[in-house]
Amino acid sequence: MIELMRELYPIPRSLTGDGVRQTLARISQEVPLEVAEVPSGTQVFDWTTPKEWNVDEAWIAGPAGERVVDFADSSLHLLGYSVPVRTRLPLAELRERVFTHPHNPDWIPYRTSYYTENWGFCLSQRQLDSLPEGEYEVSVATRLEDGHVTYGEALIPGETEDEFLLSTYVDHPALCNDNLSGPVLLTALGQELARRGLRYSYRLLFSPATIGPLCWLWQNRDRVDRIKHGLVASCLGDPGGMTYKRSRRGDAEIDRAVAIVLRDSGRDHSILEWFPYGGDERQFNSPGFDLPVGALSRTPADKFPGYHSSGDDFDLVGAEWLEHSLQTYLAVVEALEGNRSYVNASPYGEPQLGKRGLYRSVGGGSSEEGALLWTLSLTDGSMDLLAIAQRSGLPFRAIREAADRLLEHDLLRAA
Amino acid sequence: MIELMRELYPIPRSLTGDGVRQTLARISQEVPLEVAEVPSGTQVFDWTTPKEWNVDEAWIAGPAGERVVDFADSSLHLLGYSVPVRTRLPLAELRERVFTHPHNPDWIPYRTSYYTENWGFCLSQRQLDSLPEGEYEVSVATRLEDGHVTYGEALIPGETEDEFLLSTYVDHPALCNDNLSGPVLLTALGQELARRGLRYSYRLLFSPATIGPLCWLWQNRDRVDRIKHGLVASCLGDPGGMTYKRSRRGDAEIDRAVAIVLRDSGRDHSILEWFPYGGDERQFNSPGFDLPVGALSRTPADKFPGYHSSGDDFDLVGAEWLEHSLQTYLAVVEALEGNRSYVNASPYGEPQLGKRGLYRSVGGGSSEEGALLWTLSLTDGSMDLLAIAQRSGLPFRAIREAADRLLEHDLLRAA
Amino acid sequence: MIELMRELYPIPRSLTGDGVRQTLARISQEVPLEVAEVPSGTQVFDWTTPKEWNVDEAWIAGPAGERVVDFADSSLHLLGYSVPVRTRLPLAELRERVFTHPHNPDWIPYRTSYYTENWGFCLSQRQLDSLPEGEYEVSVATRLEDGHVTYGEALIPGETEDEFLLSTYVDHPALCNDNLSGPVLLTALGQELARRGLRYSYRLLFSPATIGPLCWLWQNRDRVDRIKHGLVASCLGDPGGMTYKRSRRGDAEIDRAVAIVLRDSGRDHSILEWFPYGGDERQFNSPGFDLPVGALSRTPADKFPGYHSSGDDFDLVGAEWLEHSLQTYLAVVEALEGNRSYVNASPYGEPQLGKRGLYRSVGGGSSEEGALLWTLSLTDGSMDLLAIAQRSGLPFRAIREAADRLLEHDLLRAA
Repeated sequence: MIELMRELYPIPRSLTGDGVRQTLARISQEVPLEVAEVPSGTQVFDWTTPKEWNVDEAWIAGPAGERVVDFADSSLHLLGYSVPVRTRLPLAELRERVFTHPHNPDWIPYRTSYYTENWGFCLSQRQLDSLPEGEYEVSVATRLEDGHVTYGEALIPGETEDEFLLSTYVDHPALCNDNLSGPVLLTALGQELARRGLRYSYRLLFSPATIGPLCWLWQNRDRVDRIKHGLVASCLGDPGGMTYKRSRRGDAEIDRAVAIVLRDSGRDHSILEWFPYGGDERQFNSPGFDLPVGALSRTPADKFPGYHSSGDDFDLVGAEWLEHSLQTYLAVVEALEGNRSYVNASPYGEPQLGKRGLYRSVGGGSSEEGALLWTLSLTDGSMDLLAIAQRSGLPFRAIREAADRLLEHDLLRAA
Repeated sequence: MIELMRELYPIPRSLTGDGVRQTLARISQEVPLEVAEVPSGTQVFDWTTPKEWNVDEAWIAGPAGERVVDFADSSLHLLGYSVPVRTRLPLAELRERVFTHPHNPDWIPYRTSYYTENWGFCLSQRQLDSLPEGEYEVSVATRLEDGHVTYGEALIPGETEDEFLLSTYVDHPALCNDNLSGPVLLTALGQELARRGLRYSYRLLFSPATIGPLCWLWQNRDRVDRIKHGLVASCLGDPGGMTYKRSRRGDAEIDRAVAIVLRDSGRDHSILEWFPYGGDERQFNSPGFDLPVGALSRTPADKFPGYHSSGDDFDLVGAEWLEHSLQTYLAVVEALEGNRSYVNASPYGEPQLGKRGLYRSVGGGSSEEGALLWTLSLTDGSMDLLAIAQRSGLPFRAIREAADRLLEHDLLRAA
Repeated sequence: MIELMRELYPIPRSLTGDGVRQTLARISQEVPLEVAEVPSGTQVFDWTTPKEWNVDEAWIAGPAGERVVDFADSSLHLLGYSVPVRTRLPLAELRERVFTHPHNPDWIPYRTSYYTENWGFCLSQRQLDSLPEGEYEVSVATRLEDGHVTYGEALIPGETEDEFLLSTYVDHPALCNDNLSGPVLLTALGQELARRGLRYSYRLLFSPATIGPLCWLWQNRDRVDRIKHGLVASCLGDPGGMTYKRSRRGDAEIDRAVAIVLRDSGRDHSILEWFPYGGDERQFNSPGFDLPVGALSRTPADKFPGYHSSGDDFDLVGAEWLEHSLQTYLAVVEALEGNRSYVNASPYGEPQLGKRGLYRSVGGGSSEEGALLWTLSLTDGSMDLLAIAQRSGLPFRAIREAADRLLEHDLLRAA
């Protein structure tokens, strides 16, 4: 995942444009994507898709004519969606067009102006301070014109048409944790899922934030009831503990599954109630759709150092954290794949486990049978295995294994 | 409010009689009251209205003939509802007819004997101790005879016939916090409400405790379903924090409104679950009526020093505390007036706030939109604005203002 | 109860056999029991009743021919359900057939092998260590043959056929707390209940663990809906606080009753949520029956020192703890006998308690009327007296007495 991140890092992504296309093309080499293009000016619910933005070049030349800032060095240098400009202006006026990081003098901030026409540059405070007085030349050679919003999706089919939606955003430029970590994790997850036999169909969505999910929801507005579970993937490469933000419903099956997986992990983690700001979960959870989509991250965006600046680089993220995030996503997949409701097929008295080799034969106490006994006790049709794992306090995996053994012995049947 | 309290203080109030009439007449100069008189001996649910009690004079003369105790000095001196007596008796026997304060030797206690015929005097312990041995003359010239229970009410009409009941008791003699604070607060509240455009109609009830609300409920027993919210006002002038006692239902709209108002105040306060002793809320919340009526006080009766004694005087209460209590009542009125249920009119995806000037246009993070986003997220018809304020943790006022802005932009509609 | 325990202690009990019969015969002298015998090999739900096991003799003789271990000294010495054997073997091989206590070198452990054919002895570690090298002679003269599972029950009839089931197990050999305390407590409880007028019928069940309740449930499978409440009695003689394990339902009337009784006791106690291991409550709470049967003990089995060993002796248990346990069971009986739902017969306003002598006539504050007022306030048909005791925080006894006084005055009626 780190290697793919290194390849994607220099591509100049924004909300629209060739950077998004190149990113999707590279991902498509790993997980074949179906790429959709929605024309600029399309009415999408309450929104109108924006013009497409591409950058030919953008730079500032100093009093002596030398390039002091160049988009070619870092795509962070240009205010996203800057309109074209070619002008000369004194340092004092240039300063009014420059954004720096409020806390760290070495970081270039990441700023955009998607829905208001504007232009500007982003520099580190140290770089800004080093600029000598004098007249500067500015060139912003961008094209903001009718084009498309571009997104890509992959469907990994399972036994049923019920879908597990995994969504991430691909509009951020050279920023590792927020959010190249999301696309590389979903890419690796998609590769792994394609190797497995699955009950659910898995839909991977790589799209520009906000407008991307809105376009996808618009295109699929008659089919969203296929989405049974969903997660928005972002900020998955830093060393912090896992953070889960519940869906608006709060107690959907995805919410219960992630809570059990994080509990069973034995690692520090946080579970947050729904709140209506944050990432793309906002669109999926809007009250008209009310889809059971949570957000599973490590340290939430804006809580880690370097957030939305050049400080969000390869020093912040680690292959081991990406791998742990991937394993956590896979554990959630396994919990939902394995979650079923069963009914005790021998409900009058406790079945005799001993004669089936399910019980230690010499008395004296044992706790190994706990998962078998909890499963038999609670499979009255009112609880699924996640609920049994919750009430018993036992790991989901132990309950799932107990259910498998009981099924083998005809002591459970499907609810 | 303090000035009105000073005027009402010397009027010799009791459960019935001219003291109540004079009190209502004085209040009526500020808020016109409709005064009702229920004849003695009327069957009111399980109760029979008592005889009317008036005091012509009541005094004790000492061995030397001097008046040592006189009702004219303080209406607290006479045991409420004392029957007439004219007698001479030695100090030892007089002592058996005298009540003093159990803890404070300087305070005259307030005692009554409404439903058992009796007579007696209330003195400070210090005064009692100073009485010389000898024979005393006692005169209790009271009239306990058929008359009326008197109460007053004012209706401040609003757009609807749904009523908000505000009730207080007017039977206590010269006691400031418990309970002249109640009538003076409701008087000021009535004056303020009469100046406002209102959705609810507001009914102010000034009546003797217990029997007054019972008489009012009896007279209005076919119309009590108009009462949508109610508060019993008492003990509102001391420096303690606000105390709210929930209605018997516990989660009525009035309960949720007061809880949010007190939370939003940022001040120390207490919220108590329902209990069936206390004040007139007992009658309104009796299971046959089960009205949503809470009790909103500062320090509860019997928890402040001087309770039911001459220690409950103008040193205990303060104009600033009365004013704060009034503002709190007004905030509850505003919360209930403003509480509505709406439905998000653009529920598919988040509406684009930016194009309506409701969103900061340059990215980089902001929390100002929180109230807008929470309101849009939760207006699915299942929650009113109080519930949204509760779940979001944001002030009710912020949610109400957000709803107003969204209504202006046709992003909400009535549920 | 201690005296009966001393008589029962030496009887060599096991899952089946004459030890159980002798135990039931002795109890029958106190509370007449109906004894049932279920033949070996009977299919009972998922189980088959075992062969009956009786011991003629069992001993180990040392190299010098002396008896070093003898079942006649303690019925703990023989692994329960040991199959017959007569052999000679060196100490090293004998050691493989010997169980000792893992923590205490002086205690003989209690071990069984009911459902796997095996033989062995139980010794204290100290005794094992003292055995000299050499050849040992072993005699296990047991009979494991077709016979019966034996249990006894008594029905103490009440006004209704609704039953309160009290169940304990009688298969443990010379062990005081776990579980002679159970049978002696139920015996004393039965004697006391037989002296009382009762609303419920009380069924006492004395049976071997697991297979006993299964046999009883099998025989009564068409009548189990008569069981309205139930408790499994065990471990009731040690000095620890009372421990209640809720029924699987968690909020059955028995669960609420025991919780209130323990709360009202003012003593330290524990209330545990349902878990599907433990004692005979497992069978009654299996999802097919789902009976409201909790388990009321002092220190739970396996939490007190000496559990399942010779350390569970007369030094561990005390007459005063047995007596306190009995009083607790009786308090639960009284709570359930007295728990009813009533409706306030004078629900409009508070009834005038004073005219009925139920209220202090001179004002000035009192809390004595609390139980009357709580009962009047909450008897709207939705709550029984246990629920009123729970919500009011007042003792159940006070609420029951208040209800009785209100019934006398026609202020309540049956719901």
